[in-house]
Amino acid sequence: MSVVRNNIAVMPGYVPGEQPQSGRFIKLNTNECPYLPSPRIAEACLEKIRQGLNRYPDPMGNLFRRAAAEKFGVPMEFILTGNGSDDILTILTRTFVGEGETLRLPYPSYILYKSLAQLQNARSEEILFDENWRLTPEFTAPTPGLKLVYLPNPNSPSGTVLSRQEILAVADALPCPLVVDEAYADFAEENCVDLVLQNRNIIVTRTLSKSYGLAGLRFGFVIAHPDWIQEFVKVKDSYNCDALSIVAATAAFSDESWFVETMAKMKKTREAMVPQLEKLGFHVTPSQANFLWCTMPQRPLRPIYQTLREENIFVRYMPYDRWPYGNGEGLRISVGTDEEVEILMKRLGEILS
Amino acid sequence: MSVVRNNIAVMPGYVPGEQPQSGRFIKLNTNECPYLPSPRIAEACLEKIRQGLNRYPDPMGNLFRRAAAEKFGVPMEFILTGNGSDDILTILTRTFVGEGETLRLPYPSYILYKSLAQLQNARSEEILFDENWRLTPEFTAPTPGLKLVYLPNPNSPSGTVLSRQEILAVADALPCPLVVDEAYADFAEENCVDLVLQNRNIIVTRTLSKSYGLAGLRFGFVIAHPDWIQEFVKVKDSYNCDALSIVAATAAFSDESWFVETMAKMKKTREAMVPQLEKLGFHVTPSQANFLWCTMPQRPLRPIYQTLREENIFVRYMPYDRWPYGNGEGLRISVGTDEEVEILMKRLGEILS
Repeated sequence: MSVVRNNIAVMPGYVPGEQPQSGRFIKLNTNECPYLPSPRIAEACLEKIRQGLNRYPDPMGNLFRRAAAEKFGVPMEFILTGNGSDDILTILTRTFVGEGETLRLPYPSYILYKSLAQLQNARSEEILFDENWRLTPEFTAPTPGLKLVYLPNPNSPSGTVLSRQEILAVADALPCPLVVDEAYADFAEENCVDLVLQNRNIIVTRTLSKSYGLAGLRFGFVIAHPDWIQEFVKVKDSYNCDALSIVAATAAFSDESWFVETMAKMKKTREAMVPQLEKLGFHVTPSQANFLWCTMPQRPLRPIYQTLREENIFVRYMPYDRWPYGNGEGLRISVGTDEEVEILMKRLGEILS
Repeated sequence: MSVVRNNIAVMPGYVPGEQPQSGRFIKLNTNECPYLPSPRIAEACLEKIRQGLNRYPDPMGNLFRRAAAEKFGVPMEFILTGNGSDDILTILTRTFVGEGETLRLPYPSYILYKSLAQLQNARSEEILFDENWRLTPEFTAPTPGLKLVYLPNPNSPSGTVLSRQEILAVADALPCPLVVDEAYADFAEENCVDLVLQNRNIIVTRTLSKSYGLAGLRFGFVIAHPDWIQEFVKVKDSYNCDALSIVAATAAFSDESWFVETMAKMKKTREAMVPQLEKLGFHVTPSQANFLWCTMPQRPLRPIYQTLREENIFVRYMPYDRWPYGNGEGLRISVGTDEEVEILMKRLGEILS
């Protein structure tokens, strides 16, 4: 396979969480919304199918851009749609980071950022969080060829957040754009969208996969200065968002009551999960996302994950080789329905007893 | 904008055909199918929406891979799905072509290939077709850093085809993989899918946008040796195809009678268009695609395109700066419904009289 680029040939490739396609299971491993999305989404898709899928979609997804602009109080020229926020992250990386240049990310965080650097044959620099999941000065230190910095906020797997003030300070200290990946921001107390208007080096990415219950649809977007957006448009595939996802995402934004109720329900479940997990012996990091990071240094966690998996209960087992906390591994458990959580806790209690 | 990669900053960006989003129009500019897709597609989407879009799709789209494998008589490991064939072309380019390396394409053909090279900060080499739209020996000549060759077959804008024997000879002569872009192959008399089994340097790409009436859905795929597919999987976004497009594309493949009837109807319309256009004074290149390449050296074509456009009749005006045929411009007219074609011919007759 010598004709394949060497950076591709040697890379292991990003491995997404398991997505079982049939059978009954409790799925708490990839931070999906456990509830069906707003019924307006089905209506919007139906109407679009009736009109006909034989025509190309709007390359810019302007219907959604207008809705997002109104929602976030920015001009629509600040918005660009993507085929999931993974597509957006790919576009950003390709825009800013060339071969041999450097992309920075915190560790532990979203492993995909590193794969995106590898695909560009670029360097990636993983900067360890401190033991309280805060950034160290190393995160803003200059380094040759630094072109882009990723910062998920809330972070995964920890669910922890940095304040808006901290984000602004990081952006001010960096010589390059800072991408604040807000995949989980709808579950948090605050977000950084309006900071994009204050500092053009702040770029915010969003997804509808988590808080809008649309992981199956693939829809994300970026909020950034229009000068950046113009460049991203060159990099994206012309028709990166299909006609159904554009109308469905727009419909999702129109149903504020579904959103408010679902967020309230999921946050309530999240807070109820914490004492139950602690009672079982886990250390649970305070989370502002739709998952909980659970560690238990005195006991290996892989067997627990395995036992649950054999019973079609999926949680995410995450080992970290360069991790200063606990013994470098943890379970990341998504917020499910109350019924799912009850079954999980019962089985965990039996396994751990 | 100095932090944007220079290859991106200086490139103009690929400009897709116009996609008007409202109003009534006759749209013969981007080679869509003028007919609604199989009704099975709506059924499949509905069922999937009912099951819930809140879960991630199968990252590999195995439901479709199995259907495609059966249809084409190859193992499913030879198939990879994409978010339109543009996504597939992006994946292939990123797998094989690094900065400063070379991507080859014929000219005139699909302009996007050149943009894909620019995005990689790679060189692109456009090799002119001869005046009969055949390849010259230059197309297989060695050149330093040649990593990938694109060859649309049928070609656009000409609608012309190279034979399977010619394709095999080109692949044998090249030091790198040859991508046969078969976006329009369903309208042609033969295709190259089975050649993938004979020569692993032949990679075939397909789309459901044209012959299956699914441009709005974004679904394409590649047929290639499993060793290549494994590398492409590393490069693609994990969930590049959404849950609706996977079931819809699979449903499209299941409705053979829709496909056979639609292809017959469109080929019949295509053949009926040729003498009408010739009578109007156009030179029409014999086409095996769902469009016709129409030139008229004695008369500038841009005003004709403009006049039609003002009346909401869209055809594609294509000027070529390095083109040895006619005066370097032509109209590429998609095969529409018989009613659309009748209106077009009537207006063209009036404009040209």
